[in-house]
Parts: sequence; structure tokens; C-alpha cells
Amino acid sequence: MKNIPIILMGCGGVGRQLLQHIVSCRSLHANKGIHLRVVGVCDSKTFLVTQDVLSTEFDDAFLMDICRTKSDGLSLEKCISSGKCEASSYSESRRKLTDIAARLGFVLVDCSASSETIEVITQTVNLGCCAVLANKKPLTCSMEEFDKLFLQPRRIRHESTVGAGLPIITSLNRIISSGDEISLIIGSLSGTLGYVMSEVENGKPFSEVVKAAKDLGYTEPDPRDDLSGMDVARKGLILARLLGQRLEMKTTTVESLCPDKMGPDMMTLEDFLANGLPLLDNDIEKRVKKASSNGKVLRYVCILENSQCKVGIHEVPKDSALGRLKGSDNVVEIYSRCYVNPLVIQGAGAGNDTTAAGVLADIIDLQDQFP
Amino acid sequence: MKNIPIILMGCGGVGRQLLQHIVSCRSLHANKGIHLRVVGVCDSKTFLVTQDVLSTEFDDAFLMDICRTKSDGLSLEKCISSGKCEASSYSESRRKLTDIAARLGFVLVDCSASSETIEVITQTVNLGCCAVLANKKPLTCSMEEFDKLFLQPRRIRHESTVGAGLPIITSLNRIISSGDEISLIIGSLSGTLGYVMSEVENGKPFSEVVKAAKDLGYTEPDPRDDLSGMDVARKGLILARLLGQRLEMKTTTVESLCPDKMGPDMMTLEDFLANGLPLLDNDIEKRVKKASSNGKVLRYVCILENSQCKVGIHEVPKDSALGRLKGSDNVVEIYSRCYVNPLVIQGAGAGNDTTAAGVLADIIDLQDQFP
Repeated sequence: MKNIPIILMGCGGVGRQLLQHIVSCRSLHANKGIHLRVVGVCDSKTFLVTQDVLSTEFDDAFLMDICRTKSDGLSLEKCISSGKCEASSYSESRRKLTDIAARLGFVLVDCSASSETIEVITQTVNLGCCAVLANKKPLTCSMEEFDKLFLQPRRIRHESTVGAGLPIITSLNRIISSGDEISLIIGSLSGTLGYVMSEVENGKPFSEVVKAAKDLGYTEPDPRDDLSGMDVARKGLILARLLGQRLEMKTTTVESLCPDKMGPDMMTLEDFLANGLPLLDNDIEKRVKKASSNGKVLRYVCILENSQCKVGIHEVPKDSALGRLKGSDNVVEIYSRCYVNPLVIQGAGAGNDTTAAGVLADIIDLQDQFP
Repeated sequence: MKNIPIILMGCGGVGRQLLQHIVSCRSLHANKGIHLRVVGVCDSKTFLVTQDVLSTEFDDAFLMDICRTKSDGLSLEKCISSGKCEASSYSESRRKLTDIAARLGFVLVDCSASSETIEVITQTVNLGCCAVLANKKPLTCSMEEFDKLFLQPRRIRHESTVGAGLPIITSLNRIISSGDEISLIIGSLSGTLGYVMSEVENGKPFSEVVKAAKDLGYTEPDPRDDLSGMDVARKGLILARLLGQRLEMKTTTVESLCPDKMGPDMMTLEDFLANGLPLLDNDIEKRVKKASSNGKVLRYVCILENSQCKVGIHEVPKDSALGRLKGSDNVVEIYSRCYVNPLVIQGAGAGNDTTAAGVLADIIDLQDQFP
């Protein structure tokens, strides 16, 4: 049985779901000769680790305790009293993790949303560990930090940073390693903005569609976080760097659907929804009509072409995979020497279940790194 | 630099293209720290191998010589006189390959169309080698042989056996290893039959569409080889076995679009095209109309559901990815717990360039198996 030690950073929605997947896949993985041994778990306050990382692990009952604790909105501190672990503070966790990495090869899984994890991931990977990321932030750092992080690229997987569990990065890596030349990638990588753009296509006012998306739970608590396009821009930058483009976040062209003067520091959320948002309807309606008169529809996409990454509203043919998109699915079209008609990958691009499934597939994909 | 020895079986269209890809990707792969060292090449008559497999390789000029020779329709025998290799007959090649496998870990690449390669692949993999297959036949053998072949599943890749370079098998393996439960796979996996079914949808007679497809070079020299559905059935069986279903070729339900009485042993090709094929128009036309009256269209698909594999004509919704399919693209819809709306993968599913690109991506994906 191949034994893969795991340390998880971030046990909110995705991380918690990952622990549940690990437990429910025990027999499936055993049949493939694999055992995932969770030896540590970290939230924003506390780092819990087994008493002897070389030989023990958190048992499944304790992992389920952790899930329940986090599901109840509590901190991992509550689990310390179990006697099944040692605890350190978050601030000590970095030193602890590199100490362990010097003695044990493990997979460091980053399901947090923190921009502070890059340093410890870089350190542990360069000490011989592997890393799996659902967290986009470490991949959208400066190129200098990025280069240090990817000194050992085979030890890092991050499928769930773009399109959740959709096999976008896996597929791109295959295309790249086969020498096929990618000329264009165009993708709708926000379920929220995908929903919004396909609904306004049918004539509904932008403001009503955004409010409906908020009511359906499709948006962040403040929809301006989606409308800013920054989340799509991060995904675009991750794909661009995969293609070898040495771009920085600040050189990515991002069209925000929310003007600066309606930003969170200028207007309350209530004021924005009631008075700001409706002012945007007219412009979007005009653009929808203009696109329609060209036989096209509007999509909020990231476009990678000519070593550039652009994010914003774009007219696409009605009968393309992008143009036919409905609901909150993500879709990516990849054009290359082999794919003159694009390679299309489409499906749910959000949700804790599918994101955690992508993380778990990444962990299993790293199995050949372990003896 | 990681050095990966390669021995290629079958250097017709795909194999030849693979050698060209390997040569043209030299600097790309060197940047990733990989060197693909081709030490042997085999066609149906001759096995060429370097004089010392442990330390030498065919240089790029010799690989290009091999490509030219095969492109001219000649046998590898013609390359013997180069003095750059040792030659054996095809019948000796099996013993030679296992001899080498006992001394050297290599990737055995099967780009042949032979049903005889399974034994040598099984032997070399169980001696510690890896295998990459574009050849479907070894994967559609009996379950008994299949089990022996897959004793070391991590050492085998075969993306290009289904949908050429499309990332179908890679994606399925990820979904399976994450514990997501697949409820249904439905795919149009023949570019030829995809083209035929989308053209008859527009009212064109079946016989004319098949003849047009033949003239466009979309079909096998005898289109009955496509119409029989056997190639799709093989792909369906490969996917079914990936899902863990212990099915045999003979238990796969296959609807042939060419009745037995019009088979190659009953009618010449000319007679079939002139007199047999037009007799099929009426039935297809009726089925197209019946589907259309239900808001559906006909596709020739493989369906994996309830531990069964069925291959044949099926009515699908007009506005699904399958229903919108035009031209010779392949498309697969995968339904699972995470993908209630299906995960869709679509693109070119045939052609030497994309098939060889899939093989090359598989080889690179095996890099962690080599020290």
C-alpha cells in the first residue's frame, strides 16, 4: 500500500469537503493501492498535527469531527482537547511545516484563500514535498515569486484554481507537452458572469439579472466582487503563465462591470444595488443589441492571444460553444495547430464538491512522487 | 536531464508523425529537463534497434530517414544498410524486446493496428517498462488478457485510443480517482458517423451522404468498416473497462448501419455503393423524421449506463452538445454526481497529427516513472 501523507491548509468549504471525500474514498483508493494519511490540518488560527507525523495519522472519526467543527463555524481550537493531536498557533505553523518537511515528504494542500501561503508552499516543495492548490493567490504573485514556487514543477498541481474540477489545466499541460502550438484560448470562467451575460442576452435588464443572481446565491455576498472581473483575471493570469507568458497581474487588461465610482469604498452595498446598478442597464442593453445585430452575443471572457491576457466583455458567435452557454457552466475553447476547430471543455466550474474533487484527483495524480 | 528510452511499434501514419513530433519538440522537452531517446523502431516486417540500447540512440537524421522511408511506402528493411542499427525480423522482435526490457526500462509505444502486440506489451510492462498505446486492439482483448496487461496500471497510458488526442481518458481517470460517481457517458466517437448523422439531419439521403464522406476521405477505403460500428464499439469497450466494468467485446450491443447481407463477403464495394447503400435511405429518413417530431436528432453514439455498453443510433436533444454537433468533431458528455449538467469534451477526434500528439503527451506524462 502506497502511503501519501497530507497536510491541509484551509478547512472552510472546499477543505472540509476534501476531508469528507478522502474518508468516503477509502476503499476506492485502497483498491488502487493508495492510502491518504492526513497528518495535519490548519485554519487561520490553529495548526493541528498528529503526535508522530512519521507513523500516525488523524483517524476518520477525528477528520469528521474537524468537518463538523468547521461546519458549525468554529475554529480548529475546539478540536485540541481531543488528545489526538498537538496544536500550534497559526503564526508558528510555518516553522512547524518546514520542520516536518525536512523529515517527511508530504502533500501540502492549500484550500485557503490566503495570499500568505506562497512562502511556506515554496519552502516545503523545495524541501522535497508536493503541493496541490485550490487557492489562486499563490499563483498570481509576482513572476519572481512564481519562478521560485515552480522550481520543481512536477511536484505541484493546481487544477482546481481554474474552472474548479474541470480538466482545463491537465488538458493544457498535455497540449503543451506534445508541442502543439496554442494560438488562442477564450473562456467563460465565472459561473456568475456566465449566468449574467446569458440572461441579459434575452432582454432582461442587467440590474435585475445581477439581483436575481445574488438571490440565487450565484454571486459573492457583495456582487461587486464578481463584477470587478478580478477573479476571472486571476484565472486568466494562471492560464497565461501555464503557456509560458511572463505576465504580471498589473499588466492584465481587466474590464470591470462596476465603475470605480460605485466601488465598495464609494457606496454601501444597499446603495449600489438600489441606485448604482440600475444606471448600468442602458449601456449593457446597447451593447447586447449591437452584438445581436452582428449575429453575436456578449460573454464575459478571458482571452489569451499574442502573449497577452485580456479580461472583459467580448462578442462571440451565437452558435459557438461560448455563444450557446446557458446557466452557470464554465466553458473554455482552445485553438491550436491540432484544434483549428477548438477543443472545447465545458461543465460546472464552481462548487465545493467539484472543486474538492479536482483537488483530490490532483493528489492521486502525484502518487508516483511517493515511494 | 531525464532520459526516457523509447521503442516504437508501428511506424505508419501515427507512428511516423510521432517520430517527427519527438524531433521537433527537442528544445521544448530539453527546457523541461527531458530527453526522449529512441532506441528501437518496428514495422510489420523488421525490428531496428541501436547497437547499444543502454547508451546510444537513433539520431534525429536517422529518425527522419525512417519517416521518409515509411512515407514512401517502403519497409524498414531499407534502413538497415545505414550501419546505425541492428536489425531482426518481426518474428524475432518479441524475444528481442523482452531481452532489452530485462536490462533497460523503456516506453514501448504501440502505434500499430495489430492484435498481436498485447503479449509483448504485457511482458515488457511486467518487467518494469511502461507502455503507451494508440492501438485499440490490445485493450479490447478478453478480460483475462486485459487483467494481465493492467497488473501495473500506472505504467500504461492510452489516451489516443479514444477520441485521438482529446483528453477523454485523462479526464475520466481524474473523475474516477476523486470518487465522483459516473452515471452516464454518451459520446459520438466516430468523426465519420458524426458527419453522416449530422448531414442526414438536413434531409440529405443517407447513401449520398456516405458517398460524399467517402469522397472527402472521411471514411475507410470501404465505408462498411465505419458503418459496422465496430470501431466505435472498441472505443466504448475501452471506456467501459476504465469504469471498472468487466465487459467483453462480444457482450457489447452494436447496431450496424450496414446489414449483414450487404457485408464485404456478400457484395463487392462497387455493388454496395451502387445498389446496396441506396436501399438503406428509406429507413434512415423515417427515423430522422420521427426523431425530429420529438424535437430530437439522431446521433451514432456509444452509451455507457447501468454497467452496459451500447453502440448505435440514438435520439438526442437538439440543443445538447451532442445534438449541436456538426462536421467530424467527436464529443463526449459525462454525467456524474459533480456533473449533473454534463462535463462536455469536444474537438477533432481523428488525424495523425492529433493522435500522435496524444501519444507524445502520454509519454511525457510517464516521466515520473523514470529516475
